[in-house]
Amino acid sequence: MTGQHLNDGRILVVGLGPGPAQWLTPEASDALSIATDLIGYGPYVDRVPEREGLQRHASDNRVEIDRARHALELAKAGRVVAVVSGGDPGVFAMAAAVFEAVEHGDELDRTVRIDVMPGVSAMQAAAARLGAPLGHDFCAISLSDNLKPWEVIERRLTAAAQGDFVIAFYNPASRARPDAIHRAFALLRSLKDGATPVALARAVGRPDERLIVGDLAEVDPSLCDMSTLVLIGSSETRFIERPNGLAPWVYTPRHYGGGR
Amino acid sequence: MTGQHLNDGRILVVGLGPGPAQWLTPEASDALSIATDLIGYGPYVDRVPEREGLQRHASDNRVEIDRARHALELAKAGRVVAVVSGGDPGVFAMAAAVFEAVEHGDELDRTVRIDVMPGVSAMQAAAARLGAPLGHDFCAISLSDNLKPWEVIERRLTAAAQGDFVIAFYNPASRARPDAIHRAFALLRSLKDGATPVALARAVGRPDERLIVGDLAEVDPSLCDMSTLVLIGSSETRFIERPNGLAPWVYTPRHYGGGR
Repeated sequence: MTGQHLNDGRILVVGLGPGPAQWLTPEASDALSIATDLIGYGPYVDRVPEREGLQRHASDNRVEIDRARHALELAKAGRVVAVVSGGDPGVFAMAAAVFEAVEHGDELDRTVRIDVMPGVSAMQAAAARLGAPLGHDFCAISLSDNLKPWEVIERRLTAAAQGDFVIAFYNPASRARPDAIHRAFALLRSLKDGATPVALARAVGRPDERLIVGDLAEVDPSLCDMSTLVLIGSSETRFIERPNGLAPWVYTPRHYGGGR
Repeated sequence: MTGQHLNDGRILVVGLGPGPAQWLTPEASDALSIATDLIGYGPYVDRVPEREGLQRHASDNRVEIDRARHALELAKAGRVVAVVSGGDPGVFAMAAAVFEAVEHGDELDRTVRIDVMPGVSAMQAAAARLGAPLGHDFCAISLSDNLKPWEVIERRLTAAAQGDFVIAFYNPASRARPDAIHRAFALLRSLKDGATPVALARAVGRPDERLIVGDLAEVDPSLCDMSTLVLIGSSETRFIERPNGLAPWVYTPRHYGGGR
């Protein structure tokens, strides 16, 4: 970043990864160690260790835009503000909210230094546990809340099926739209082979991790909660069965159409 | 992982991130410190510091499946083998090759312990530098080599445009298919608004990093090389212009259709 900034105040948009410290990048750790202020949804703020001089602004509401606005005001006042998200802040998380606040803010907001620190996102942690389901072209769709009309989700699900992408669902069971995952499964069952591998990966990397794998026709979408990342295979995604009581792997070959 | 493994040999499929150590997870660092053997494409192997007792097996060819096969043989012989990739090994990288080797291998291969360690992928690093272009539903497509027919790429590009996804291209200029990015741009220009924001993000995080942003109609795809990650916006993706000589941000709002 070149150009002239307002003052030493700045915003660090930090991805905490899916949970355990083993997935927190050194860059994110460093950002948390220099911040004067910490802003985020309560459970994420709680994951950052206490430190003298670190002002914590946890919120329990869902109004990301207010948090982003707050961060901008603090940065303009010269504070070093870490805005924390789980996973990667750029993927269905706080980074977009921060830039949305800038877009709708004043001229001064556009001079604030903002650095986004990428992180491991939930779909990557889930994929790593399962094998390599994201080994070929894929898409990521959020089923969350009321930020987009259902028609847009339906259009994207249909396109994802037509393109034969592997599909990752984020936020499959938001409070504002608890039936979204059921509608999504119903639509995909009408468009894709019932034998398509599906995985429900809950709280990957955390003590309450739970992995469920099965076929699209059989897996029960009501087993999803807000901590679940859902993966739906392409026509190429397959299981590798294993002996000795070992769980099967799920992977999508790098080749398409059986050419090898 | 429960169940019975063959011996203490194992495979660690490690993502080195997009380049700098600041994006290497502690889990990946730990894996590299316990490995007895290191397998990967030369430039990735070179990024791992020398250490006594660490056997390096760099390859300069493109035959990922041979590397994966080699890793399985070493693991079955009791070695602790780190298979290294740039970025996230689960995203267009070595993890799928390893499981492909297992699928086509013998029964013993299926008993080898294989742990995949996720990493920050190129599209995430690029997005972080640019603002928040992946803030809403997106897809990732590899334009690489001869692993899939061009018809599949065309079908997926068309679906991605119909679904109005943000699109990330990996491997836009492979040796086997140097014209792929030109054909992809031509197709997308016929399907999407010419004013759609586009970014070419080259070698993000490395000394030779270069970011180019512009409109779909204007950006020159011949500026892509094998180190370039290409991002194509959705209809909602936009620039935020900034004063004082600061580079514009690119972001995709969390909302769709202007509702706010």
